[in-house]
Amino acid sequence: MSWRRAIPRRGLQSARGAATLPGYPFSIMNTPVRVTVWGEFRHEKKNPKVAAHYPQGMHETIAGFLRAEVDLAVRTATLDQPEHGLTAAVLDQTDVLIWWGHMAHGEVKDEIVERVRTRVLEGMGLIVLHSGHYSKIFKALMGTTCSLKWREATDKERLWNVMATHPIAAGIGEYFEIPNEEMYGEPFGIPTPDELIFISWFTGGEVFRSGATWYRGHGRIFYFRPGHETYPTYHHAQVQRVLINAVRWARPTVRIPDTCPNAKALEPLPFDPEAAERPTVGHR
Amino acid sequence: MSWRRAIPRRGLQSARGAATLPGYPFSIMNTPVRVTVWGEFRHEKKNPKVAAHYPQGMHETIAGFLRAEVDLAVRTATLDQPEHGLTAAVLDQTDVLIWWGHMAHGEVKDEIVERVRTRVLEGMGLIVLHSGHYSKIFKALMGTTCSLKWREATDKERLWNVMATHPIAAGIGEYFEIPNEEMYGEPFGIPTPDELIFISWFTGGEVFRSGATWYRGHGRIFYFRPGHETYPTYHHAQVQRVLINAVRWARPTVRIPDTCPNAKALEPLPFDPEAAERPTVGHR
Amino acid sequence: MSWRRAIPRRGLQSARGAATLPGYPFSIMNTPVRVTVWGEFRHEKKNPKVAAHYPQGMHETIAGFLRAEVDLAVRTATLDQPEHGLTAAVLDQTDVLIWWGHMAHGEVKDEIVERVRTRVLEGMGLIVLHSGHYSKIFKALMGTTCSLKWREATDKERLWNVMATHPIAAGIGEYFEIPNEEMYGEPFGIPTPDELIFISWFTGGEVFRSGATWYRGHGRIFYFRPGHETYPTYHHAQVQRVLINAVRWARPTVRIPDTCPNAKALEPLPFDPEAAERPTVGHR
Amino acid sequence: MSWRRAIPRRGLQSARGAATLPGYPFSIMNTPVRVTVWGEFRHEKKNPKVAAHYPQGMHETIAGFLRAEVDLAVRTATLDQPEHGLTAAVLDQTDVLIWWGHMAHGEVKDEIVERVRTRVLEGMGLIVLHSGHYSKIFKALMGTTCSLKWREATDKERLWNVMATHPIAAGIGEYFEIPNEEMYGEPFGIPTPDELIFISWFTGGEVFRSGATWYRGHGRIFYFRPGHETYPTYHHAQVQRVLINAVRWARPTVRIPDTCPNAKALEPLPFDPEAAERPTVGHR
Repeated sequence: MSWRRAIPRRGLQSARGAATLPGYPFSIMNTPVRVTVWGEFRHEKKNPKVAAHYPQGMHETIAGFLRAEVDLAVRTATLDQPEHGLTAAVLDQTDVLIWWGHMAHGEVKDEIVERVRTRVLEGMGLIVLHSGHYSKIFKALMGTTCSLKWREATDKERLWNVMATHPIAAGIGEYFEIPNEEMYGEPFGIPTPDELIFISWFTGGEVFRSGATWYRGHGRIFYFRPGHETYPTYHHAQVQRVLINAVRWARPTVRIPDTCPNAKALEPLPFDPEAAERPTVGHR
Repeated sequence: MSWRRAIPRRGLQSARGAATLPGYPFSIMNTPVRVTVWGEFRHEKKNPKVAAHYPQGMHETIAGFLRAEVDLAVRTATLDQPEHGLTAAVLDQTDVLIWWGHMAHGEVKDEIVERVRTRVLEGMGLIVLHSGHYSKIFKALMGTTCSLKWREATDKERLWNVMATHPIAAGIGEYFEIPNEEMYGEPFGIPTPDELIFISWFTGGEVFRSGATWYRGHGRIFYFRPGHETYPTYHHAQVQRVLINAVRWARPTVRIPDTCPNAKALEPLPFDPEAAERPTVGHR
Repeated sequence: MSWRRAIPRRGLQSARGAATLPGYPFSIMNTPVRVTVWGEFRHEKKNPKVAAHYPQGMHETIAGFLRAEVDLAVRTATLDQPEHGLTAAVLDQTDVLIWWGHMAHGEVKDEIVERVRTRVLEGMGLIVLHSGHYSKIFKALMGTTCSLKWREATDKERLWNVMATHPIAAGIGEYFEIPNEEMYGEPFGIPTPDELIFISWFTGGEVFRSGATWYRGHGRIFYFRPGHETYPTYHHAQVQRVLINAVRWARPTVRIPDTCPNAKALEPLPFDPEAAERPTVGHR
Repeated sequence: MSWRRAIPRRGLQSARGAATLPGYPFSIMNTPVRVTVWGEFRHEKKNPKVAAHYPQGMHETIAGFLRAEVDLAVRTATLDQPEHGLTAAVLDQTDVLIWWGHMAHGEVKDEIVERVRTRVLEGMGLIVLHSGHYSKIFKALMGTTCSLKWREATDKERLWNVMATHPIAAGIGEYFEIPNEEMYGEPFGIPTPDELIFISWFTGGEVFRSGATWYRGHGRIFYFRPGHETYPTYHHAQVQRVLINAVRWARPTVRIPDTCPNAKALEPLPFDPEAAERPTVGHR
């Protein structure tokens, strides 16, 4: 596989022949992170309130502030494009995929979901936003219901930073506030996060694990709660800061395709009178 | 729902005047754990070597030693039964499901897999054995590849107990040995276990996370590595001890169907001029 | 050691012919859990407001509702007793120790702290309450600062149950409220909990990881946030329910003294020409 | 505090005015990581076999291969120096501390241990090597016994990489071997690692969690098993690679001194008739 030759499998050299920090997993400075922002792009066309916040679509707003970062190379993809904009070629050239979906989760083809899942397990980063908690791809990677409580009203959200050392929390103080947001409340039907970064407080009396990571296969996954379509959340400076940080954190360190090999012994084994009959091909 | 009335949902049923420990989630003593042992039951019919170890099938050997425990009520189910023996009624009356499959994972219907997954997330325990690492149900709950290295040869396996306090390790000393077993080696494509209980040493030079748990939804999952069909592993006393322990550990403490409710605020919210237009029905 | 004979070390004692569940780590029904409630017992003597809530001391209130449970055998100990009431004999006969301290953490002797720590690592359960977050014993077992934000005012506390299946949450619904309590806020200087059970919401805008467990050595540790001395918190039904559950959850399954042995090989090693010079005695 | 001004608290700018990646926690390229390698330096003076491997001391061998990395600034410190070479000034200027000790753990002064612990909790990285599992500083940060099995003989050690994506495993393949090493075996008396990277296989039949991380306070801790003084382990290329990687991984992202503040409410509270009597100064 050409990628495997092109980039350092476990990071000893730069992917592009450039000078890089010896031994560091990836060239942080020289290789842009290739980001694909995927948006469902339906609410914006139907609801004038959403369109007012995001005239080009939520995905373009997100892509916009990411493009201002010199080390990120950003493109977008949407549900109504062929293959939802997520062709094999696009995914092959994507380091980090951002996912926003809501009303049309069911329209995402299972085949594309499986393609994305395979890429994440090989090493691609995945950032799932807000109502993406119920996307097929997030549920497939979590294995759980991903259900929660919700309310669209006038709650204030205050996100407390409970892991100040995490790269995703870099530049975020002890907390930040979003003046109005949809409420999501516990219990949240997720596996215990590998890292819990933000816990939200809502005016109406609820709490929520709003920023959390999971390591799955060779990919890094970040779920970030804020971002309901009827609020201007992706224009919020600290929300943008979290997403910029998350993209850098989620970039791959390896790309390793799945195998389940028959393996020769590394140490001597007792004589095997049945050796000839032993299987050497596995099952799926 | 009748079950929900029949068993204490979160253990409120008092011991005083009833035959159970006050406040304990379940009546440990009085309610048998209802176990369904699921076996693929194909190798036993095709390979005389397997049939020699397990004349009635591997599932019957496993069910056999479980039935000797007074607090367990055990039945079996197999792939070639209608609905693979896992009808809605059977699953409804199952507390803990044990799963052994290998050569025919692909024949298990997706609809049945989804039914089992839903029951696990509601609270049913699931014990996945050996080659079940590649079963559809295990992969669906883990979200990962579940791949590994393997070799059928003359390895000895020594399982080290690294969590002596875990109920699944009760009665197991610091380690136990299986004279001959198939080797499974790292890397194993699983999410980080919630609890790592056993690590295996193999003669040929490999190691493996051989006993591990995951909490998913309201269900408890245990993966246990030993049990290749061409070895007499399920006749091994300590393997049996681990499985008996695991069934007790995996029994449900609750049964909670999935919901994703629109939730009223518990504290006063600011006035909402748009209240009438807010959605109160969610998406899937 | 008599204890080691008296109770099943890892649960091998059979139910058949004995009054215990076969293979279960401990006899759940027949052996009372021996609980020692430790109270600093200073505020109650100095502050009439505290004395009004807890005329016999906070430890006696806690011991009182535990004593109503038929399977618990409860005693108390306080700071001003000889050896703080925690003699070697008392600890030797204690399954679960509950700890409430606040203004006099510094007066607890290091020697007693080390004695308690040793017992926890051997298997004794430990439940640390509220201001006990700053006790020497909790800090010694966590290894971290255990610092937090705090405010004594008129906050309401709502504890959300984020792990409904945990035995400590048995009988607790999705949340419960304490009308007035001291606020504790994040960041809380603890290692990531092994299990996070409760997250608190406070009127003043903060959140807190209010119920959490850690497995340390062979002992189970539970930290539970509520319980400031100037509020009647230990008279609250659900607070009591949580503590009763926690005592049962924290009971030992083993008692294993610390060793660091020189170990003979279990498999053949290459010839060792230097064998005679090798050390067989370790360091501390 | 001057450091707090001098370096980015949560990483938004370079510590030294240099150009850096926007938003990245630290300037990866421009600021050298300041490493202090601490060696007990006793075995080397007493045992000619050890001196033959490490004529200038083990700490100098370790410092030597680290100094070959352009982004690391390395110094050493030893037990017999004043304050064990770990003055407040040295620790203040240390980003990552490496610790090797064995026969003289008891001679390390408690005051220095506490000073190191405080720095780790503020953000300094700590890498503990081999017999350092029994050092005062490791035990203080873990809270557990840190005991294990051991044998000095002719075992081969094979370290399996079970977390290929971890920066500490960068450039390490699926496993690497050390031809002869002291054996350490499970059970290992540690808290469950936050990340488990390496599991060792030994000829004599044991396994061990040989590479593991813990996040404590704002500091990152890595324990790495190999490195017994009578073997040439620190001359091994992959051992060196792991340590170089670990230094980069453990570098601080923040420096936050401990506080436990009385906090004003962020949202309106009910009227408090007792406000004047409320404490505003905390306890320790």
